[in-house]
Amino acid sequence: MDFDALKWDDKGLISVIFQDHETNEVLVLGYMNRQALQLTLETGKAHLYRRSRGKIMMKGETSGNVQLVKEILLDCDADAIIMKIEQIGGAACHEGYRSCFFRKLEGDEWKVIGERVFDPKEVYGR
Amino acid sequence: MDFDALKWDDKGLISVIFQDHETNEVLVLGYMNRQALQLTLETGKAHLYRRSRGKIMMKGETSGNVQLVKEILLDCDADAIIMKIEQIGGAACHEGYRSCFFRKLEGDEWKVIGERVFDPKEVYGR
Repeated sequence: MDFDALKWDDKGLISVIFQDHETNEVLVLGYMNRQALQLTLETGKAHLYRRSRGKIMMKGETSGNVQLVKEILLDCDADAIIMKIEQIGGAACHEGYRSCFFRKLEGDEWKVIGERVFDPKEVYGR
Repeated sequence: MDFDALKWDDKGLISVIFQDHETNEVLVLGYMNRQALQLTLETGKAHLYRRSRGKIMMKGETSGNVQLVKEILLDCDADAIIMKIEQIGGAACHEGYRSCFFRKLEGDEWKVIGERVFDPKEVYGR
């Protein structure tokens, strides 16, 4: 892949939508820098640049909930990627839900619609 | 909706993933500022902040390919939204494809896998 053909933002990142490869459920919107994308391509396992921590982490590094990349799509502007993945362990969200998008707007309120797959306190010890 | 509960980035924007409400196909990754989100909620039709033009546009304003919002989801960090939509006209991409994600990585190359629904030259006159 020609990394220079991708449009990296002013922080050197590109947006990546992670989608279940079978159901098309969107699990996570994350970010990669060049190194995270390189590691993802080399290993077949999703690596993200975690903006809050300023470092690259493999998804599931602590929880074991690794994401195996099955298919990669690029958008018209070359500034967003979809990775269709197999979600090991059943949960993509660090809060223990299958998807990070576990809240739905009902009226003016966000209502939790996801069910917890794991207890983050047990997995991360916090 | 409490707009202050959302995490707007340093440009005052939030990422919005547009997904077909029936198939879960991801059609667009776009951005909204507060006004675009307000207009979207008021009208039920997707409005985006177009970063390349520095202004708000209703999706389908020119092409007629409007997006009717059916469901809104929020992620754990409150910095990304999913809007499940009904895509009028069958195409979400300004290049005439159903989805903006019409290229797939095969080996080292991006291969067009989408089929054109309309000819952008005819629709936009360019």
